[in-house]
Amino acid sequence: MSASAGLIENQRIVLAAKPQGMPSESDFALVRGPVPHPGAGDVVVRCLWLSVDPYMRGLIDGVYPYVKQVLIGDTMRGGGVGRVVASNDPEFGVGDLVEGYLGWQLYSVLPGSELRQVNPALGPPSTAVGVLGMPGMTAYFGMTEIGEPKAGQTVVVSAAAGAVGSAAGQIARIRGCRVVGIAGSAEKVRHVVEDLGFDACIDYRAEPDLLAALRRHCPERINVYFDNVGGSIYDAVTSWMALDARIVICGSISEYNAQGLELGPRRLKQFEMWRARQQGFRVRDYAARYPEGIAVMAQWLTEGRLRYRETVSQGLASAPSAFIGLLQGRNVGKQLVKLAQDTSRVSRDDALGTTRRTPCKSEDVS
Amino acid sequence: MSASAGLIENQRIVLAAKPQGMPSESDFALVRGPVPHPGAGDVVVRCLWLSVDPYMRGLIDGVYPYVKQVLIGDTMRGGGVGRVVASNDPEFGVGDLVEGYLGWQLYSVLPGSELRQVNPALGPPSTAVGVLGMPGMTAYFGMTEIGEPKAGQTVVVSAAAGAVGSAAGQIARIRGCRVVGIAGSAEKVRHVVEDLGFDACIDYRAEPDLLAALRRHCPERINVYFDNVGGSIYDAVTSWMALDARIVICGSISEYNAQGLELGPRRLKQFEMWRARQQGFRVRDYAARYPEGIAVMAQWLTEGRLRYRETVSQGLASAPSAFIGLLQGRNVGKQLVKLAQDTSRVSRDDALGTTRRTPCKSEDVS
Repeated sequence: MSASAGLIENQRIVLAAKPQGMPSESDFALVRGPVPHPGAGDVVVRCLWLSVDPYMRGLIDGVYPYVKQVLIGDTMRGGGVGRVVASNDPEFGVGDLVEGYLGWQLYSVLPGSELRQVNPALGPPSTAVGVLGMPGMTAYFGMTEIGEPKAGQTVVVSAAAGAVGSAAGQIARIRGCRVVGIAGSAEKVRHVVEDLGFDACIDYRAEPDLLAALRRHCPERINVYFDNVGGSIYDAVTSWMALDARIVICGSISEYNAQGLELGPRRLKQFEMWRARQQGFRVRDYAARYPEGIAVMAQWLTEGRLRYRETVSQGLASAPSAFIGLLQGRNVGKQLVKLAQDTSRVSRDDALGTTRRTPCKSEDVS
Repeated sequence: MSASAGLIENQRIVLAAKPQGMPSESDFALVRGPVPHPGAGDVVVRCLWLSVDPYMRGLIDGVYPYVKQVLIGDTMRGGGVGRVVASNDPEFGVGDLVEGYLGWQLYSVLPGSELRQVNPALGPPSTAVGVLGMPGMTAYFGMTEIGEPKAGQTVVVSAAAGAVGSAAGQIARIRGCRVVGIAGSAEKVRHVVEDLGFDACIDYRAEPDLLAALRRHCPERINVYFDNVGGSIYDAVTSWMALDARIVICGSISEYNAQGLELGPRRLKQFEMWRARQQGFRVRDYAARYPEGIAVMAQWLTEGRLRYRETVSQGLASAPSAFIGLLQGRNVGKQLVKLAQDTSRVSRDDALGTTRRTPCKSEDVS
């Protein structure tokens, strides 16, 4: 391994203040310092793409019983994909493309056991934190294992233009379902229907009566609801459930910045009447089955049956605003932060034939 | 069959007015008239015991998508057990003990296909609408199939002194769980712990902080919640769930008389964090498996591992007040209305040895 890691300057985004409600950019700070020397078994990774995801809001509040809270002064945690630049783990060689919880920083030093080798033949590197990574696996296992959609059934997906929702809806389409999205702008609605092939999509911000819209678009009620948002959208969907409805509780972004309890009607009578099932879901529990999920999703990408879109923010310093934009619903598709040009010859994006993947157009918001 | 059915006077309780919120006795009326002549395949049953159950409040409001609403002028529907006095169905002979939706009346005429033969050797006739009938099967299939309690886990049951809750908790005890009941009076709490053998029971009316009490009695959080009541008790339990918690939505009696929507905190973040499952449950879906459930429960009765208590109201005219008392939580154990002395030699209660059943003391509130 290279002994020079300590000489390279790192840049990190740390939590500077605990947000009350919606975070602001001043809650984060950029810090410079040397890349730490790797210990035994450690790998040094140069980060290429950072993933920005809703669950990070929960990390700051420490809501997950099984994950360490991000405290003031800590580097923001989050998934990323990068290149190995030094390795004390024989499983990883310099130049390998890897994915893991790299954090919001230019270089990451962490045990090889916490990294996953990425097969660059399956898709561009960014897909390792997108449709072929955590969000894609969330959609795949959440929809197939918890949602259990059956051909001919009606599936509703909220945050349908987001990284998880867009994949979840397409998976249900591939399974032969009628899929209705819910999204928050005319452009998202257009994207979901025209680019992703959903049967319909409701703009919840423009729709005065969401329940009426659901009744219109789902005349036979709703068999599966893949819930990424919670809140009043959950309330509307759960009052229009079909018999044996499955409610996949994947996230509740509408409530992540709530200060205090958000109240809604209890739907217990509806759950009893319609024999409905609601189930919380954590993708980490499917870690051992990622290879299976990635293989299936990569095949669908190759066949052009699965599409995705990325919103790319440029540079580490843009990560806080990208994160806030995500929580406000400004992104379409997967929100990424691009940290560095990937100069490895092996996996340059343009080495992949266009038949190997079918991204929608990529959009750069920075 | 007897041709005299039309000459016997029947008495029925009909719905006289649609209750707003909690029903009152004036919402019901006793009507006299001849027993109708049975048609082809019909059976005439003399009712011995009427079952009074919380779901009947929902029948009046027409909330069940799969069951006919009770309209003004209709005989109140409900389960009962009785003796066949005339039969046009070769499956049933005069004197047979049968169970079915007899309704609130002295005599019931209905197709034999809607009746179930009761084996009088398994328990006293009243158990056919209690621990060996719908409430017992609700507890058995709801707890074992939806709750899936595992030895050593913590199970919480609300309405723990009721017909369903008392059986559900004992079933979890038999499965090796720590079982904590929730009930609404000191006497119910005493009964649940001392007579039924629950590990603990919380008096929610006397407890100023239900969540604190749950934390005290369930130090390792709650693996299974068998919910008979909904409302604020649901709110408290679902904020103290263990990983992989199962919430059995069996009923929500606290909300049945609500006028308008009852609000509570949405628990979606907790469902996501704790990978919890909430499932509505309808015992009718297990009709084909009743023989299995009844055999197991009857065996437990014989072994003295399962106990029950009955609250008996005397005479058809007392059915409305018994029903209102049930909705107000005045009963302990199974609420019954006794219509007639069973004069059949074959199944007199005292023909059963005491080792064949282990009721707690029977209490007569009328």
